[in-house]
Amino acid sequence: MIKTDILIIGAGPTGLFTVFEAGLLKLKCHLIDALAQPGGQCSEIYPKKPIYDIPAFPEVLAGDLVDNLMEQIKPFEPGFTLGERAETIEKLKDDTFIVTTSKGTKHHAPVVAIAGGLGSFEPRKPPLANISKFEDKGVEYIIRDPEVYRNKRVVIAGGGDSALDWSIFLANVASEVTLVHRRNEFRGALDSVDRVKELKDLGKIRLVTPGEIIQLNGEENLESVLIRKNNEASEEIILEVDHFIPLFGLSPKLGPIADWGLEIEKNAIKVDNSLDYQTNIPGIYAIGDVNTYPGKLKLILCGFHEATLMCQSAYQRIFPDKKYVMKYTTVGGVTGFDGTKKEAPKAVVKAID
Amino acid sequence: MIKTDILIIGAGPTGLFTVFEAGLLKLKCHLIDALAQPGGQCSEIYPKKPIYDIPAFPEVLAGDLVDNLMEQIKPFEPGFTLGERAETIEKLKDDTFIVTTSKGTKHHAPVVAIAGGLGSFEPRKPPLANISKFEDKGVEYIIRDPEVYRNKRVVIAGGGDSALDWSIFLANVASEVTLVHRRNEFRGALDSVDRVKELKDLGKIRLVTPGEIIQLNGEENLESVLIRKNNEASEEIILEVDHFIPLFGLSPKLGPIADWGLEIEKNAIKVDNSLDYQTNIPGIYAIGDVNTYPGKLKLILCGFHEATLMCQSAYQRIFPDKKYVMKYTTVGGVTGFDGTKKEAPKAVVKAID
Repeated sequence: MIKTDILIIGAGPTGLFTVFEAGLLKLKCHLIDALAQPGGQCSEIYPKKPIYDIPAFPEVLAGDLVDNLMEQIKPFEPGFTLGERAETIEKLKDDTFIVTTSKGTKHHAPVVAIAGGLGSFEPRKPPLANISKFEDKGVEYIIRDPEVYRNKRVVIAGGGDSALDWSIFLANVASEVTLVHRRNEFRGALDSVDRVKELKDLGKIRLVTPGEIIQLNGEENLESVLIRKNNEASEEIILEVDHFIPLFGLSPKLGPIADWGLEIEKNAIKVDNSLDYQTNIPGIYAIGDVNTYPGKLKLILCGFHEATLMCQSAYQRIFPDKKYVMKYTTVGGVTGFDGTKKEAPKAVVKAID
Repeated sequence: MIKTDILIIGAGPTGLFTVFEAGLLKLKCHLIDALAQPGGQCSEIYPKKPIYDIPAFPEVLAGDLVDNLMEQIKPFEPGFTLGERAETIEKLKDDTFIVTTSKGTKHHAPVVAIAGGLGSFEPRKPPLANISKFEDKGVEYIIRDPEVYRNKRVVIAGGGDSALDWSIFLANVASEVTLVHRRNEFRGALDSVDRVKELKDLGKIRLVTPGEIIQLNGEENLESVLIRKNNEASEEIILEVDHFIPLFGLSPKLGPIADWGLEIEKNAIKVDNSLDYQTNIPGIYAIGDVNTYPGKLKLILCGFHEATLMCQSAYQRIFPDKKYVMKYTTVGGVTGFDGTKKEAPKAVVKAID
């Protein structure tokens, strides 16, 4: 059982910054995220895209924003349960919560902060009858560790950046890379499109366009796929493969959280924005893109504010008898749980003789 | 008459960021500030102090924060009325406002956003009977242009960083610098204290400690000051000077805004935080440290959020019939009023043959 003060569901920018504000109040945090790394969409979907509306950053790449936040929260030693989705919540008699993930990991905390963004990102799956049978037995929707594909025969499907980038990357890892896309046109960075063309000309990527995977075959594991070219039944080919990786994008789903008894409106969790972003269940807060209230804007900078106010309320819940007096970091500095201390150089008091 | 969409009172971080969020909505902004430069306290009081709780900045100097914000809002060409305090407000029949400053400059706008921080910073004045008579006639509380003091005889009073730093600076500008402090001990950066000692030993700064200015003399302009040393009447000396600069710090005062008919609570303006940070007077908003609501935290990051939601409401007030659809800057980029355009590199759509 993992124990913490604030259990944060979602390790995107809002969830990460919560660790900092909680840390100033000497509260410890643990984060759960379905993705394999912290940063949410910023890391998974658009790490190289510039964001222009983070205050005091005229321009910042989403990935750099996450790196900065990770550095900022480091002194407060957050715990992470990554690659697991928060599935169930149970309220105990003492008003604390136990949250269990898709892999059965249990977390215990007096406060739960849902910072789930647009939800957990689920891969869009191609409509193939028996695809679930081969999941993790040759079919993967997300590439977690490219080494899995070393010297294997791989088919990638898709026409966007992920499909292009992974085809390029795996061309030097896998023994065979086939890229199948149902249109002739790819949509991605110019560089990537050009590079795929080069690798095709060098014979390192087999390109099938317009083409579609229409059948998966195999006993236990995936053994081959049936590809139809040019939408013609006469142009079907069977390709022996070890892996089929459909990269059709990720689509966000609120997921199991939707069944936690929280008030939901338009796929978001209703909160009390007049005070502390608490949900209808005391002790459970919702911050960032996952919540909704009158005037809500789904902006990262709003998540930062919501996280900050929420932490004050969490503090009162955890220590009902203590009064917290806010100190400015410019004045009081930042004392990490790891023993580090950052503070402005102190003035000296000294006579001149 | 200066005309704008959103008239912002206070050019601190919150006021500055408002320009950006308004700009995304194609609304123009003009800022009024009593200080001579933008940035509020960050520029005037602690430009070299690190702040640790701006999201995604593990550490940032207050002055750099302001520089970053100024760069971020540049495309939206804000106007500035600096060194003038907003004094009076008048609501016209068409529900727009005219705000007049201490120097009589008039500003006309449909929306007023008060981002006044802790108020306008007023210098702490020494309790000398006739001091107001000499204001701007030899007595200055803030140094705006050091060249004013070239080859003049200057007395500085105070024991903090400002007194130390300006004594050092003016030692090479003025013909005579006398530094008077009522204690022997100075409180400031070690470097500055050491440097003042050096300049004293070189005869470039005359130091009087413990000492106090107890009288100002002069016909029209200041001509001399009476300094009492060691708290002894027997140790009084008359010093002929051109300028007396008491640097006893700045203290914030809500000032004339307190008389605008706004609901005030604990020296702050009450706002409706459940929607848009509007005050009791429709069309006047209060954002950042100047406002108060249940759970309010006087943090820069909260001001950023408040400014952002306020701009949406301002847009509705200015264009009651238009519906604004928010576009993410990552997707839509930022189009400046100055013709600049920043945006993420677009994906190409291209066939590979």
